[in-house]
Amino acid sequence: MQRPVTSSSSKLETKDERSYANRGMTFEEDINHSNSYYLQSGKSVIHKKPTPVQIVSVDYPKRSAAVIKEAYFKQPSTTDYNGVYRGKYIDFEAKETRNKTSFPLTNFHQHQIDHMKRVIKQDGISFILVHFKSTQDIYFLDAKHLFDFWDGQQNGGRKSIPKSYFENFGSPIQLGFNPRIDYLKIIDELFFPDV
Amino acid sequence: MQRPVTSSSSKLETKDERSYANRGMTFEEDINHSNSYYLQSGKSVIHKKPTPVQIVSVDYPKRSAAVIKEAYFKQPSTTDYNGVYRGKYIDFEAKETRNKTSFPLTNFHQHQIDHMKRVIKQDGISFILVHFKSTQDIYFLDAKHLFDFWDGQQNGGRKSIPKSYFENFGSPIQLGFNPRIDYLKIIDELFFPDV
Ligand SMILES: [Mg+2]
Ligand SMILES: [Mg+2]
Repeated sequence: MQRPVTSSSSKLETKDERSYANRGMTFEEDINHSNSYYLQSGKSVIHKKPTPVQIVSVDYPKRSAAVIKEAYFKQPSTTDYNGVYRGKYIDFEAKETRNKTSFPLTNFHQHQIDHMKRVIKQDGISFILVHFKSTQDIYFLDAKHLFDFWDGQQNGGRKSIPKSYFENFGSPIQLGFNPRIDYLKIIDELFFPDV
Repeated sequence: MQRPVTSSSSKLETKDERSYANRGMTFEEDINHSNSYYLQSGKSVIHKKPTPVQIVSVDYPKRSAAVIKEAYFKQPSTTDYNGVYRGKYIDFEAKETRNKTSFPLTNFHQHQIDHMKRVIKQDGISFILVHFKSTQDIYFLDAKHLFDFWDGQQNGGRKSIPKSYFENFGSPIQLGFNPRIDYLKIIDELFFPDV
């Protein structure tokens, strides 16, 4: 199944908020759709967290809903998705890159890494879903692998994760119909091998 | 330890967004403070979810951060807090009432109840923290008890949970210093009796 290339895709590598809002819309929609499917079928309860916003000014009109008049995007201190599956805490981040041969670590912030490390210390399941846009490949990678590269980078190591690393240590996910991105299947294989 | 009575407390029973923003500020701060303490001490990873906001219009000034110019509060479809503790998924809602003898079920929406039911089906831990403002009492109540009252209400049952019910089937929490509201202690007693 091919993911359609949208006309806005050329904007997606710049760093302002507009491109952030556009970036990975389709990939994100696929994940949200998968989560809805899981929810409706009683398989898991996993939601995307609301975008964190710093609200500065709100109007309270007399006969209608409050209107936020000034607010700013805040940098998320955690990951985008969390919830529960088979009693386990699930926590992940979804990222896209147009890079063909590696996934740049600049896609993450220190506090997101800190958060994922804490989750794993609490015996939660933490991972990333990475979409290589140029080849339409999607990989599931346990966050522990990400930590290796992140910590290595700070000691002079490389600033990206080679795609070959995802091929060797991650799990590929084929786009499906329902759910579109069946990442729970990977979690079953990795964390519930006896079920 | 007495919680100071603020001068804005008389506004808190009305239903507009302004009072919502004010309602339970101190109680919410106490919970957030407790979560920070748990996080810093490596005990759990539990966060308040960002307020869900429907963003309608955003300005992108050339040399500064994007400004949200029009947005609206959305009704939350889940609960306020979630995270992980001892590998288990934790999910709860904090509520306050000035009512002296009972806790009105109007504090909840159907989709929040649906969410908590799904969490428990997934073997997660779901509960409510209720603050009776008039007496400064705080109770932990497993969400299963809430469901009994919620479902009963829809079959002609009472529209509130008597305070005596919290005394008999909930767990009281005394305000402490650090953490201020030690709800993980209750979770230990109820869900990890052997630890
Ligand atoms: Mg993201
Ligand atoms: Mg609340």
